[in-house]
Formats: sequence, structure tokens, C-alpha cells
Amino acid sequence: MSLSEFDLIDHYFKRSCKAENNGVSIGIGDDCAVLDVPDGYQLAVTTDSLVCDIHFFADVDPYRLGYKSLAVNLSDLAAMGALPKWISLAITLPENLLAANNSDWLAEFSRGFFELADKYNVQLVGGDTTKGPLSITVSVKGIVPRGLALQRSTAQAGDLICVSGSLGSGALGLACRLNECIPENRQYFIDALELTEPRIELGILLRSLASSCMDISDGLTQDLKHILKSSSCSARLDIDKLPLADFMHQEIQSGSISEHQAEQYALTGGDDYELLFTISEAKLEQLNQLIEKSKVKNAAVSVIGSVMQPQLPLVQLFKDNKAVYFSLQGWDHFKGQN
Amino acid sequence: MSLSEFDLIDHYFKRSCKAENNGVSIGIGDDCAVLDVPDGYQLAVTTDSLVCDIHFFADVDPYRLGYKSLAVNLSDLAAMGALPKWISLAITLPENLLAANNSDWLAEFSRGFFELADKYNVQLVGGDTTKGPLSITVSVKGIVPRGLALQRSTAQAGDLICVSGSLGSGALGLACRLNECIPENRQYFIDALELTEPRIELGILLRSLASSCMDISDGLTQDLKHILKSSSCSARLDIDKLPLADFMHQEIQSGSISEHQAEQYALTGGDDYELLFTISEAKLEQLNQLIEKSKVKNAAVSVIGSVMQPQLPLVQLFKDNKAVYFSLQGWDHFKGQN
Repeated sequence: MSLSEFDLIDHYFKRSCKAENNGVSIGIGDDCAVLDVPDGYQLAVTTDSLVCDIHFFADVDPYRLGYKSLAVNLSDLAAMGALPKWISLAITLPENLLAANNSDWLAEFSRGFFELADKYNVQLVGGDTTKGPLSITVSVKGIVPRGLALQRSTAQAGDLICVSGSLGSGALGLACRLNECIPENRQYFIDALELTEPRIELGILLRSLASSCMDISDGLTQDLKHILKSSSCSARLDIDKLPLADFMHQEIQSGSISEHQAEQYALTGGDDYELLFTISEAKLEQLNQLIEKSKVKNAAVSVIGSVMQPQLPLVQLFKDNKAVYFSLQGWDHFKGQN
Repeated sequence: MSLSEFDLIDHYFKRSCKAENNGVSIGIGDDCAVLDVPDGYQLAVTTDSLVCDIHFFADVDPYRLGYKSLAVNLSDLAAMGALPKWISLAITLPENLLAANNSDWLAEFSRGFFELADKYNVQLVGGDTTKGPLSITVSVKGIVPRGLALQRSTAQAGDLICVSGSLGSGALGLACRLNECIPENRQYFIDALELTEPRIELGILLRSLASSCMDISDGLTQDLKHILKSSSCSARLDIDKLPLADFMHQEIQSGSISEHQAEQYALTGGDDYELLFTISEAKLEQLNQLIEKSKVKNAAVSVIGSVMQPQLPLVQLFKDNKAVYFSLQGWDHFKGQN
């Protein structure tokens, strides 16, 4: 016996709400959700689909899938400096996952999903459940003070280029999953891939400081090019300044991966979901003071280059202050490596 | 050669915008869209997925699929009395539809999609394109004056039960598609199934008049039960008052289908996307005057029954004022006929 669509929604997703004062006038169970955007704020909206065999493996841990399907969307809101508030979830499930003997799958999926939702006080307000090949489309809505949304198109020559956290761990995690690599700290990198931490607090701090911002989903250089093209600038990147996780340094030291491979992951690997932003030197100082004061966890920021006047190539790479060449290809789900 | 994700978005969906004054501060091309909800209004949000082989046939005309994937969402906004404003579109496409020699498919899909979007001045503000089994998830956002959203849970015993337009044509269209039936006006019923007209203008007129409202997607009685359960009421439905299309009457007269079959389609067939609402007798008079004055097209409203005190069965059927029995099953995508 299969659960009906209505049973499903009730059982797993129409739970008593943990989010508070969230401006939900009408939630799950009507034709639409009705929501209050406070005066002086704008609505920020993002939508991302995760499709089985493209974005995740069929045998993925459902807890981690639930978590990540929300995390990638929260990351987009972080990149705008927006505060996430409301989620719509469209989930398409194959027969075998709907079977009663597989009810653990949905229970685990929703556990991962709501763990992250609760952490950021974000409320599920609606969605759709359908039968078919496994895929998840999450749309998150947030709010941002009018005129303060961080954009991609507003970088200025002379700004510094910064990233949050560390780079390349998600890509190494994917290499682990594909059995292309067996590092000593395998689980750490798989966690970096699957339990991404959206940089919500940092995005909010960046609101009136960064000149442009986006999140890194397709790889640093690929994503940086979006900023550069839409801002009509070019960039210098210093490879030796790319922040690598301590565990990544360990892997290099132990010989599990080469330094070159680690740099390649950091430059072009997807799935980092760190914030990539441009900022003036003076404002970076203010930012660092704010980070110190607000005690935002994991908000470490690294300067990795600078924005320059428009020229080709769009991204010039340096190592130890010498120009170097690296193949700079990002990930495009349609073309594969492009 | 396949189109890349970025090419796709640019080519088919990032067109110059025809919608005007739509409160789009940041549109397609950044991490999020940033939108202005006017003061005094609330945000109404709905999300619906259409999955190949579940909601449409693999050989569906892409123009009609593009049209309908938006129409079913606009219908949800109509049911809230909301004015649609913004769309997010997540589309998952298999390899063969991405192939260059199949570029007509996406061109036709977007033509159908934008034809309806332009008609209601609704703007595509973002989304996601991925590779995988064909499915479409549309999320539409609209606005409604604070406190005026039409709900399901507010029907009152004594109210009249009304529907817009006619019922059962979509279900007969599906029967045509499944070759279960060959009516004389086959194309009319297939059009009713595939080129649904969302009742946006009527929903707006109903805002301060109807006591409850929803749209009919799963079948009249199935959907009416949602209103009755959430409002703690029951209902009397008069089968002989169900509005059938003129073409449906013709099919009955010519013997292509029986009267009983037509009534069954009207009572339990899905895909009508008409508005089902409850309203007091006095307010129905006001509504009819408003409809007359505003010259809203196709806003014909029929009284089909009345709301009663809670009792079982939830829905009592009458024909020529005599109680009758009918199998009243609606459509659930998970269970099939349930």
C-alpha cells in the first residue's frame, strides 16, 4: 500500500511549526501560502532542483539529501545578504520510496531537511508531492532591507576579492564518492560535500560592505567570471592565497593528493557553497571588526586576489607573484566539464 | 552538441521583459530575484510540479505543456483572490530534448509558457534548468490585499456552493487522450484539458464576497471535501445543477456519452481548474452585479448546492430533489483512483 499524497504531506511535512513570528498568515493546506513581507524589506527568491544521478547518487543518505536540498538554496539567499524565512518544497518520489516498508526514507529526508530549517528559523509553507523519478525542487524566500541586496554586477576595479571558509573540500568529497581518490580524512571531505553550511550570518554582515557577492556552486573561477562579466571587470587571483582546509593540507603533506590537485579543486571544483565577494580595503577592515564583534562562527574571510580594469583573459592567475597557467574549467550540469 | 545551462537560460528564458511595473528589483541572472511587495499587500505563493507520464504524456505538444505548467499555478492564485506577479521555473530535461536538432521543443515550450505569462502580465524572475527525466516545477508568487486572501476553512452553513465555468470537460479530454472515448467534439475537450483558463479576474472579484474558495484540480467532490473538512461543515450537491459545456450536452444528445457518464466527469473528474466557492445569497447577488459591470469574460457562475451543518456523509447528492448515490472518488496521483 502506498501513502496517498495527502497522507504524505500530513505525515512528514505538515508538522507543528517550530519557526516563530515568521509572518506566515496562511501556511500548508490551502491553495497558496500567504506571507507578510515587513515594510521596508524586499522579497528575495531562489529555486534549485536536485535530480537523482545528476546532483546526487541514487543511494544517497536521505538525511543528507534533505539537508543539502535546503542548504544549496539557503546559500543563494546568503549570497544576496537576505534573511531566509519561507520554503516551498516540490518532491517527486519513485514507487519504491513510497512503499510502506520504505517509510524510513521520507522520515530521514524530512529529518535532515527540518534540522537545517530549524537552525535558521525557516518555515515550510507549501509545496507539492508527486510520483516519478526522484528529484527535489526547493524554493526559498527571504527578506532583505530595501536596496541592500548584494548583487553580482557591482564589483569595482581596485576591490579585493575574498572568499569565506575554505575551498576545494567539496570537490575532493565528490572525488571520494566517485572513488577517484582515497584521502586519509575521507569522511571529512564527504561531509564537506553533503553537509554544506550556508553562510547566512556572513551574508547579512556583508550587506552594506561588499561591492558584489555570489555563492560558489560551480567552482571559484567559473563563478568569479559571472561577477566579472556582469561588472565589466577582470581579476587577478593568487593561487597561493586560496584557503584550503587543514585536512586538505594534511592530505598534501601525507602525499594522498598533490598540491597541484588541491589547487585545482580549490580553483575549479564545485559544491563549495562559500561566499565569493568583492570589497574595498577600508570596508574589509570594518567587516573583520564586525566579524570579531558578532562572533559569527566559521566566518573566516580570505583575500585571494583583486578586481582589475576589463582585459583578457578575464582571470589571471599568479603563484608566488608569478603569472601561471591553469586549466580553468567549471562544472556545467549540461555539458559536464566544459 | 548540447546547449549549456547558461546558453539555455539566456536563449529561451532571459528574454526582454514584456511585463511592466512589476516590482522586479533584480531579475534573472543573480543568485536570487529581489521583488517588491507593495505596502498593504501580502505575498501569495504556490508551487506545482508536472511530471512526465504522471501529469502529461511524453509526446505532449510542448506549447501546451508550457502553457499548462503555468496555468495550473495561476489557478491556485486565482483561488486565493491574488494577483499573479512573478514566476520561478525549474525545468528538468532529458538529453534528447536538449539536442540541437530538438531546439524546437524548448522554443515551443517557452512560447506557450510566455503566451500565458504575458496575458496576465506575470514575469519570469528566476529558476533552474537541469538534466534528467522530464519534469517542470513552477512556483508563482502574487499579491493580495492584507487580510483578503480567500481560504478553504471559512465556509459557513447556509452558504450557497458555486462553481465557475463548466465541469467535466477536462476529464472527458483525458478520456479522449486515453482513447477511452471518441466524442464528436474531441478537440474541444482536449483543449479544455490542455489549455485551461485560470480564473484570475473572478478570484479578484470574489475577494470580499466569497466565504471560502479553492480551485478544482482533483475533482469537484474530492476538492469540496477539503473545504468541508477544514470548515467543519457538510454539503448538499444538486447533480442536475452541475454546469456542463454546450459541447458536453451535444455529446449526450448524440449518444457519444451517457448523461450518467457526463455527471460522473463533472462530479469526480480532475483537471477542470474552475473555482469552487461558498457565498451567502446576498453576496452572490452583489457578485453577479459586479460580473455584469466588470465584463469579466467567462466568469459565469452556477449555484450547485449549499453548505450544511456538519454530518455524514460529508457530501449528499440530490437529483431532481431526490437523494441519489454516486461513487464519489477523486483523483490522487499517488493512489490512482482512490
